[in-house]
Amino acid sequence: MRLASYRWQGIEGWGQVLEASIVPLADAWPCMRTALAAGVDAIAAAADGARARIPLEAVEWLPPVPRPDKILCVGLNYASHAGEAGRELPRYPSLFPRFADSFVGHGQAVVRPSCSEAFDYEGELGVVIGRPVRGVSAAEAMSCVAGYCCLAENSVRDFQRHSAQVTAGKNFERSGSIGPWIVTRDEIDSPADLRLVTRLNGQVVQDASVGDMLFDVPAIIAYVSTFTTLHPGDIIATGTPQGVGMSRNPPLWMAPGDVLDVEIAGVGLLRNPVVAFEHEVPA
Amino acid sequence: MRLASYRWQGIEGWGQVLEASIVPLADAWPCMRTALAAGVDAIAAAADGARARIPLEAVEWLPPVPRPDKILCVGLNYASHAGEAGRELPRYPSLFPRFADSFVGHGQAVVRPSCSEAFDYEGELGVVIGRPVRGVSAAEAMSCVAGYCCLAENSVRDFQRHSAQVTAGKNFERSGSIGPWIVTRDEIDSPADLRLVTRLNGQVVQDASVGDMLFDVPAIIAYVSTFTTLHPGDIIATGTPQGVGMSRNPPLWMAPGDVLDVEIAGVGLLRNPVVAFEHEVPA
Repeated sequence: MRLASYRWQGIEGWGQVLEASIVPLADAWPCMRTALAAGVDAIAAAADGARARIPLEAVEWLPPVPRPDKILCVGLNYASHAGEAGRELPRYPSLFPRFADSFVGHGQAVVRPSCSEAFDYEGELGVVIGRPVRGVSAAEAMSCVAGYCCLAENSVRDFQRHSAQVTAGKNFERSGSIGPWIVTRDEIDSPADLRLVTRLNGQVVQDASVGDMLFDVPAIIAYVSTFTTLHPGDIIATGTPQGVGMSRNPPLWMAPGDVLDVEIAGVGLLRNPVVAFEHEVPA
Repeated sequence: MRLASYRWQGIEGWGQVLEASIVPLADAWPCMRTALAAGVDAIAAAADGARARIPLEAVEWLPPVPRPDKILCVGLNYASHAGEAGRELPRYPSLFPRFADSFVGHGQAVVRPSCSEAFDYEGELGVVIGRPVRGVSAAEAMSCVAGYCCLAENSVRDFQRHSAQVTAGKNFERSGSIGPWIVTRDEIDSPADLRLVTRLNGQVVQDASVGDMLFDVPAIIAYVSTFTTLHPGDIIATGTPQGVGMSRNPPLWMAPGDVLDVEIAGVGLLRNPVVAFEHEVPA
């Protein structure tokens, strides 16, 4: 089952994606987060009873969960990427939060800031939480997953290195993207079998097996749940593999006019154009 | 003017603190964030027209803004503390987000996790944003400040050092506190003149001038606004001075039964008991 959020005729909604349409379900659950907690069977039953259909080409895609409570990203979670970044392998998941407004949805433009040209792509698998979870073991963690999505956890590299904390470079408004939809967990036998491909202007720049992650999905959830409660709709960005632009010589930065794809077979294809933004004023 | 959020008879509300009472104002603005944007004159007019009074001793205090959109903390923002932590002075503000549920209000218990004893106090000045701000210069930044509060940005030190990113050690649920209220900006001539005192079980453990901050309030807001929009009710924790428990020999950790005070003359006194929590399971 694929679940998406959208704006259509000026109204935000969410629903199930069925072939070339969306079945709106906000009448059943105003917020997708509540529906995720209700589970796929309840959602399927509601969709069966719904008659409205919106053609996919008519909607503006939003991040599948437009305003998650928590978005936690894992850094250096592929040995290949830790190597190219010149960093040691972490003993625990290296975590940083991103604010919800640092992400757009499928098809929406990601924004290169005016104060930096070091705008780098990072294709990742996103994990969406389906029920409240605190203090869960890795063995039990998968039962908390609602589904998966494609995620572009793009970074502004010079700001990322302004201090030891990567916050600034990871939270530029509308710099990343999530989408197009959530594929529910029942459709993915094992996330470790997924293949992640990132393309910039059609050229493959990252191509990796999700199974190469240092901390797999259950391990990440178990660690996070040691200190905080994850809620339905919360997102974990599981880290990016080798091939980012900063590790190339010369560096490969995204520029206005570029098109970025993050594709995970069985999950989806997330595509975003890159635009310039002329709003920020240097601090 | 002092503004506080509370729970009373099972209902959450907010209002103006007047002597030993709170004047409830949620009828005028359901959310304090909207009122902060409206400004002190509008709030004062609404309070003048309100007749209800709730005695302070009858309420459970909540964080002044219970669910801010963004909470950003500045690390290593006092030279004295950077020195005791063995860290170089940062060239840019070292920023990390905290989730709203990592904070409680005045009088509520802060929770020492079961998985660590390295639970450290960090008294700080909190700054509350009053209007949306992006790309603001330091010269203009103070006009975006709604007011100030006391903040205990307590840390779980071993988890803070699990990786280069401090996220885990800074986001234990209910580990920090904010309150008791917001003192609006018009009551504070200059935040640099404030004096911050932290006491553990009545003994002074931190005593510093807010004027010793490396990045002052306008500089922090200007830098943050380079990459993200701050909204009314958002909180900036401006960093902790010398004297934290980890820098002592032996270390001074908070333990169940302790009482932590953060007092800033002219702003308020934030007091929290420390309790044990037996919920987490090691990852």
